[in-house]
Amino acid sequence: MSSDLPVLLAAVSVLSGLHMGFQSRRVGWSRIKHKILQPSVVGPAEFERTFRAHQNGVEFYPIFLVLLWTSGIFCNEGLSAFGGLLYIVGREMYFTGYISETKKRLPGFYLGLFVILVLSVMASVGIIKSFLDKYLKIEMFERK
Amino acid sequence: MSSDLPVLLAAVSVLSGLHMGFQSRRVGWSRIKHKILQPSVVGPAEFERTFRAHQNGVEFYPIFLVLLWTSGIFCNEGLSAFGGLLYIVGREMYFTGYISETKKRLPGFYLGLFVILVLSVMASVGIIKSFLDKYLKIEMFERK
Amino acid sequence: MSSDLPVLLAAVSVLSGLHMGFQSRRVGWSRIKHKILQPSVVGPAEFERTFRAHQNGVEFYPIFLVLLWTSGIFCNEGLSAFGGLLYIVGREMYFTGYISETKKRLPGFYLGLFVILVLSVMASVGIIKSFLDKYLKIEMFERK
Repeated sequence: MSSDLPVLLAAVSVLSGLHMGFQSRRVGWSRIKHKILQPSVVGPAEFERTFRAHQNGVEFYPIFLVLLWTSGIFCNEGLSAFGGLLYIVGREMYFTGYISETKKRLPGFYLGLFVILVLSVMASVGIIKSFLDKYLKIEMFERK
Repeated sequence: MSSDLPVLLAAVSVLSGLHMGFQSRRVGWSRIKHKILQPSVVGPAEFERTFRAHQNGVEFYPIFLVLLWTSGIFCNEGLSAFGGLLYIVGREMYFTGYISETKKRLPGFYLGLFVILVLSVMASVGIIKSFLDKYLKIEMFERK
Repeated sequence: MSSDLPVLLAAVSVLSGLHMGFQSRRVGWSRIKHKILQPSVVGPAEFERTFRAHQNGVEFYPIFLVLLWTSGIFCNEGLSAFGGLLYIVGREMYFTGYISETKKRLPGFYLGLFVILVLSVMASVGIIKSFLDKYLKIEMFERK
C-alpha cells in the first residue's frame, strides 16, 4: 500500500458517510416515534423537520465530497480534512437544531456553508495552478 | 494507462450508476402507468412506493460509493468489488420488493445494510492501518 | 504535485458542484418569492417545479460524477471533461426550462441524458479494455 494515499481525506469521507447513515437512522427513529409508516413522508411538524434536515444533508453531500477531495489533492490535504471535520460538526448542529425548531438549523447551516466556500476557493486555486502548470507550462508560486 | 488502476472498483461503480439510472427510469414508467404528471409526487400507493424506493437509493448511493472506494483502496479491492455487486443485488431486491408491498423492501434493505457495515469495517481498518504507518511510522500486521 | 493528476476532471467536478449549489440557492430564492417556509415543500406550481428540478439534479449528480471520472480515467480525459461541460449546460437548460413550464425541461434533460449515455459507453469500453489487459493479459487495440 503506497504511503502517498490521501489517508486523511479517506478518513474524513468515511466519517462523513457514517454520519449520513446515522442521520438516515434518526429519520427512521422519528418514523417510529411518530408512527409514520413508509412510504409516507408527511406527519407532525417534528417528523417533517427531521425528514427535511436529512434531505438537505443528502443534497449537499456529493458537493461536499467533490470539494473535500479536489481541495485536498490540488491544494492541501491536512487543511481540507480539517475543513471536512468542521463540516460534519456543522451538519450535526444543523440536523439537531432543525429537529427542535426550524430557525435553529441556521448556525450549523452557516458553518457548513462557510466550509463549502473555503474548500471551493482552495480547490479552485489548486486546480488553476495545476492547469497552468500542466497545459501552459506556467509555474505559479515559484519555488527557488 | 497504468495497470495499477482499480478497474474492479470502477466496473462496480459504473454498474451501480447504471442501476441507479434504471431505477430512475422505472419511476418514470410508474408515472406513465399511473398518469402522474411532473412535478407531482403524490398518487396511488404503488406510485408512492416506487418513488420512495428510488429516493432511498439516492440517499444511500454516495455513502456506498465512499465505502466501496475507501475499503477497496485501503483494504482489499476484490472483496470490496464483490461487496459492491452484493449491494446492487440488495438494492434491486429492495426496489422490486418495495413496489409490490412496503414490507417486502426489508430483505433487500438488510442485505444492502450488511454490505455497508462490512465495507465500513474494512475501510476503517485499512485507513487506521495506513494512518499509523504514514504518520506514526507504526507498522501493523508486520510482514516477516 | 504530480502533473499526472486529472486536472480537467477536477475542474469540471468543481464547476458542476458549484452549479448544484447554485440550484440549491435558487430553490431558496423561490421559497422567499412564494413565501414557503421550511420545512414545507408544497406551494404554488412554480415553486414545486423549482423544487423538483433541483431534486432531479440531486438524483443524477452522483451518477454523473461516477461516469465523468471513470470515462475520463479509463478512456479519455479531455473528451470526458468536455462531456461534463455539456452536461452542466444541459442541467442548466433543464432547471431554467422546468421553472417556466414543465414541458420546457425536456431539451435540457435529453442533452444531459445523451452525455450520460456517451460517458457510459466510454467508461465501459475503457474499463473492459483495462480489465482484459490487467487480469487476462489480453491487449486490445494493440499499438505497433
